[in-house]
Amino acid sequence: MEVSDPFDWLERAAQERAEAGLTRRVRPRPPDDGLLDLAGNDYLGLARHPAVVRAAADAATRWGAGATGSRLVTGDTTLHGELERELASYYGTESALVFSSGYAANLGMVTGLAGGGTHLACDRHNHASLIDATRLAKANGASAALFGHADLTSAQDALASSGAMTRRLVVSDTVFSVDGDLTDVAGLSRISRRHRAGLLLDDAHGLGVIGPGGQGALTAAGLRGASDIVVSVTLSKALGAQGGAVLGPHRVIRHLVDTARTFIFDTGLAPAPAAGALAALTLLRAEPQRAERVRGIAHTLASALGEQGLRVSAPRAAVVSVLAPSPDDAVAWAGRCRHAGVRVGCFRPPSVPDGRPRLRLTARADLTDADVDRVVDVLAGTRPVPVGTR
Amino acid sequence: MEVSDPFDWLERAAQERAEAGLTRRVRPRPPDDGLLDLAGNDYLGLARHPAVVRAAADAATRWGAGATGSRLVTGDTTLHGELERELASYYGTESALVFSSGYAANLGMVTGLAGGGTHLACDRHNHASLIDATRLAKANGASAALFGHADLTSAQDALASSGAMTRRLVVSDTVFSVDGDLTDVAGLSRISRRHRAGLLLDDAHGLGVIGPGGQGALTAAGLRGASDIVVSVTLSKALGAQGGAVLGPHRVIRHLVDTARTFIFDTGLAPAPAAGALAALTLLRAEPQRAERVRGIAHTLASALGEQGLRVSAPRAAVVSVLAPSPDDAVAWAGRCRHAGVRVGCFRPPSVPDGRPRLRLTARADLTDADVDRVVDVLAGTRPVPVGTR
Repeated sequence: MEVSDPFDWLERAAQERAEAGLTRRVRPRPPDDGLLDLAGNDYLGLARHPAVVRAAADAATRWGAGATGSRLVTGDTTLHGELERELASYYGTESALVFSSGYAANLGMVTGLAGGGTHLACDRHNHASLIDATRLAKANGASAALFGHADLTSAQDALASSGAMTRRLVVSDTVFSVDGDLTDVAGLSRISRRHRAGLLLDDAHGLGVIGPGGQGALTAAGLRGASDIVVSVTLSKALGAQGGAVLGPHRVIRHLVDTARTFIFDTGLAPAPAAGALAALTLLRAEPQRAERVRGIAHTLASALGEQGLRVSAPRAAVVSVLAPSPDDAVAWAGRCRHAGVRVGCFRPPSVPDGRPRLRLTARADLTDADVDRVVDVLAGTRPVPVGTR
Repeated sequence: MEVSDPFDWLERAAQERAEAGLTRRVRPRPPDDGLLDLAGNDYLGLARHPAVVRAAADAATRWGAGATGSRLVTGDTTLHGELERELASYYGTESALVFSSGYAANLGMVTGLAGGGTHLACDRHNHASLIDATRLAKANGASAALFGHADLTSAQDALASSGAMTRRLVVSDTVFSVDGDLTDVAGLSRISRRHRAGLLLDDAHGLGVIGPGGQGALTAAGLRGASDIVVSVTLSKALGAQGGAVLGPHRVIRHLVDTARTFIFDTGLAPAPAAGALAALTLLRAEPQRAERVRGIAHTLASALGEQGLRVSAPRAAVVSVLAPSPDDAVAWAGRCRHAGVRVGCFRPPSVPDGRPRLRLTARADLTDADVDRVVDVLAGTRPVPVGTR
């Protein structure tokens, strides 16, 4: 007798995704595939910098391949402490706490600070990790209202809808990862203060890119060291490694050590990526022009693509997005670029908050002018043919 | 004018935790502090094995310090693919998917497979990451019922309470991390099949320890390769590195690639820990006796501690727990052990599901008989003095 399997429904779900053009697949790459990479988030070109790689390899040799336990048991090393001090110093906060990923940092930051009686006002386009964090906070008794993307008036309304809640938080990305646009951090802070709300920001795409020397969105907005703002960052983008961190006042970090479940119940970040991120931060301190360089390249790239008639976002950080007519067109376009030697990102639902498929290009501080010219030629030369002229 | 700060409430919260004896602190360790470690989860002693460390260091050199993007963009390397094939082959499933942590793997596994219309029956003592995953699934329209810890009758009742939900899942740890006790995996599977429910298991503390050659809880229960069971594991415990993975049928893994948010929206696991875990798995294949050895040591340790009159759990894996009278006693006892040269874990609320503070000792395959004798002497010699005799 054929017994039905509880996972039979997955076949139909796969079929539906295929029909909607939403099937994804991993695409394993060798160490060097000869492609010009404009898809990764290694904004400063530090993931393979000799000093960063050496620090990572040395740390594995010195400390072992893993942290062996949670940070509160055996997973805390002097390396983690040094990285936290350097991150806090660079970003301009009293303290920092390293997590094993940016996702974990966001879950810890939001759920640790938003218990019962808290109302959250959240940008509609926040990163998936902030959205999941908000869902978890609601499960713990918080309330939440979304506001229009980067819309201060709407944010004010969302805050004002806090009802009987006694604490308030505003939660937003600084640089939105899909289009690379910025929220008005100073404006959000003004509104937050008016409502005695704490401000929680995800500066994953800001650290190393935004502000003087890449010191991030808080310094750029004139809010360095603010006592009522908490920021999360990643160690896997500008710092070329892996992990995340929450940066803020001592008392906030101390609270997260005691309460953030993704800190308490997770193995500590492995020594190799911790040391890699620390070495990258040291390089950024010594060569702050890397941050200006990556922003300049993004700007050049966007201008040149726009001149080719492509629909391009206005870059405020390292990300340039180019709209595609449909999910299938986006996939095919990215495929033609790869065939021509250029790797670009291809973003489709549910990875795009507005549902519009696009290619996502990321500037890197180590791209040459010739690299940029080549990218523009390839993108323009492989663009989708409008339906009417096919 | 003194303006009140939205984080002022943290001072009172810190005070309350201090009064309850629940303040935690990180304790950075140097590469070698001379302590005999019985607190980490490096069960097979592989985190610092020369072959594992060399593989991790080489991978950083060859691939860079980070994966540079999500697995679906640039973060997928041939290393990740090889690790996934080896994990699936060792564990006996069709397929595997690597995440950046076990926490992320559990969030992805549960939320990816439990949409609206799904009823989850969950062991009351499940790990924090499974609890958070269940909360997220509920936010997506699932329902959930807790069952008594490792209680099959209660599990059956929890499943039967699915009401109008059309899909059912049973969710449980295999080895519970605090006491090291096992659930009855074969029994849970029988109940699941009776209700046409999928079974989701977290075998984080089972891989490398339980079953012949450490092949894990599924092989141990005679369920290797079952089409209706999905398992998560970590790469940070027996495999000595960092990361997590979900193991199961092809169609389940394919579904998670398309839908698991902690897979899609997270930077890929860094090459160094991925290569470290792969090397550890290769060692485990070559030296399967490591798994038997760690279980034998746990058993010896528990027997000897019990003979000293301490209240010890019956170890079924690598974990041995020893009850302490109060949270403060547990902290002080662990401190005295450390002073005597032995590092043990100290678990207090909210890290203990039953609220009872204890020391947590973990066996390692590379402990000598003399090490075990020393641990027993130190634990017994530093035990808390009963209140009446102080």
